[in-house]
Amino acid sequence: MSEPITIDDIRAARGRLTGVARVTPILESPFLNQIAGRRVLVKLECLQRTGSFKFRGGWSAISALEPEQRQRGVIAFSSGNHAQGVAHAAELMGVPAVIVMPVDAPALKIANTRAHGAEVVLYDRPGGESRETLGQSLADERGLTLIKPFDEPMVMAGQGTCGLEIAAQAAEAGVTQADVLVCCGGGGFTSGIALALEADAPGLRVRPCEPEGFDDVARSLATGSRQSNPSESGSICDAVLTPAPGELTLPILQRLAGPGLTVSDQDALMAMGQAFQRLKVVAEPGGAVALAAALYRADRIEGDAVICTISGGNVDAAMFARALDTL
Amino acid sequence: MSEPITIDDIRAARGRLTGVARVTPILESPFLNQIAGRRVLVKLECLQRTGSFKFRGGWSAISALEPEQRQRGVIAFSSGNHAQGVAHAAELMGVPAVIVMPVDAPALKIANTRAHGAEVVLYDRPGGESRETLGQSLADERGLTLIKPFDEPMVMAGQGTCGLEIAAQAAEAGVTQADVLVCCGGGGFTSGIALALEADAPGLRVRPCEPEGFDDVARSLATGSRQSNPSESGSICDAVLTPAPGELTLPILQRLAGPGLTVSDQDALMAMGQAFQRLKVVAEPGGAVALAAALYRADRIEGDAVICTISGGNVDAAMFARALDTL
Repeated sequence: MSEPITIDDIRAARGRLTGVARVTPILESPFLNQIAGRRVLVKLECLQRTGSFKFRGGWSAISALEPEQRQRGVIAFSSGNHAQGVAHAAELMGVPAVIVMPVDAPALKIANTRAHGAEVVLYDRPGGESRETLGQSLADERGLTLIKPFDEPMVMAGQGTCGLEIAAQAAEAGVTQADVLVCCGGGGFTSGIALALEADAPGLRVRPCEPEGFDDVARSLATGSRQSNPSESGSICDAVLTPAPGELTLPILQRLAGPGLTVSDQDALMAMGQAFQRLKVVAEPGGAVALAAALYRADRIEGDAVICTISGGNVDAAMFARALDTL
Repeated sequence: MSEPITIDDIRAARGRLTGVARVTPILESPFLNQIAGRRVLVKLECLQRTGSFKFRGGWSAISALEPEQRQRGVIAFSSGNHAQGVAHAAELMGVPAVIVMPVDAPALKIANTRAHGAEVVLYDRPGGESRETLGQSLADERGLTLIKPFDEPMVMAGQGTCGLEIAAQAAEAGVTQADVLVCCGGGGFTSGIALALEADAPGLRVRPCEPEGFDDVARSLATGSRQSNPSESGSICDAVLTPAPGELTLPILQRLAGPGLTVSDQDALMAMGQAFQRLKVVAEPGGAVALAAALYRADRIEGDAVICTISGGNVDAAMFARALDTL
């Protein structure tokens, strides 16, 4: 079965993203190395535009549209990072964007999405029409193109550009054999990185990292069939809570990923505290699960070095204060 | 009068620092631009090794010593960022380091300095022997070389390497005419950057930024003679509290710097909050004074763009929580 994207799609996405997305740094701290018992290279996607890697996929997808299609505008469903990534990419290209957000999304995320020039349409989760129905009718009315958060080839290709950077930066740091721990929701980021590493750094292997109770990808990999989560809420790691792995992303992970790792919400908060104290960066809970796995699941990892992503930093002050309390 | 260093010393320091110090990113946020009413480019020295620009000067100075002198070891007085910068540089070069710290320095800073392999000698501020006397006797006994925090040519040359990066990164961002706001204590960082910009980006001009009540550099520039601060404590911006401008640094600032800017402690906390929310980085109070000036003293600045440094991120959780409370 052929896969939805190839390394050529990722390289093409990199071409479109050059000069727009940031090449985020990869940092290392002797203090974190000490906790983990090995070198820990941390890829800081919290420093990406809009505070998460999602800008890569948003820009990649919108910039890949035909000009006429692009001019009619785009639509996305998201309460968080995908919303901001798509909205800001559209804003920079002068493309109209409609973002459908739950009415109970954090006020700051709604405000940010609006500040990036998007039209925000709020919907009530329970009872009323589904967001898919609402979104589809808006898309049909206005001729908008739906930008899905992960099961979308050009989004996956955009996220994969982060993997090209990891390959180059790890080699520069002298690391050519290691696990690459990736914060994993639907698998767009993880599968994109996996394909990039397969091509550019075959000694690096992705491993999805998820919150306990929301380890659909880990279980899907372990059992060989697509597993769902029993719930869509109940963890503070909102950025990586998805009902099930993507249909396009899972086969790539089955072919290329190592076993999944899971961490508790408390582990994620502690990792946020370490990122604050040792790297001087802001991680959100879902963006800290891979660092948490690197630090606190060291016995499930092999080798002299491990690479992990901090996938985003869009966290409110009250939640961040909880992370500070772990120090 | 000839100056203590030239651009050639800064370029030579860059040569010694290449592959060791990080080339820190310069970032921009549309939200910060909106507050300031102009583009704000932020140079993230909080992401430098040891969490502040001080690593540059420490490495520059130690690596410039003759091998025999270096092997005998180095000594520094510091309660904070200079301590960690010198200790980590010495550690990486296998050089013994003694750091003289006040007994009431933050426990974390003492622990970090020790963790970098330095011998920490604590002294009591009031009453007992001065730290200079204590340090001098230690230096004499063991043949250690004193690495002063700012009035030291090779330290100034190291800090100046940040200015070379600013010149290149600003040009890449399309900014060639702007003020460069620098968090300023004794003036080592500011004067080093000033010399680098004079050579590589003559349209960029440094302006020292200080906390209210500790504006010795601003007053020295305004009056034309070296002014002292009435007190050495009483601001949360500990990293930039010095009794008076350096004797080597001030003449360079008199020749090259624009008028100083001052901000309140509350401004610094608010800027830390904005750095958290919009840039996803951790700034310490003294490291946030230049961003605070960019955001909240916009009427004292001219032009379409301003550049500012976040000079460090070594802040404890309790102080950072105060910054979060401003959001």
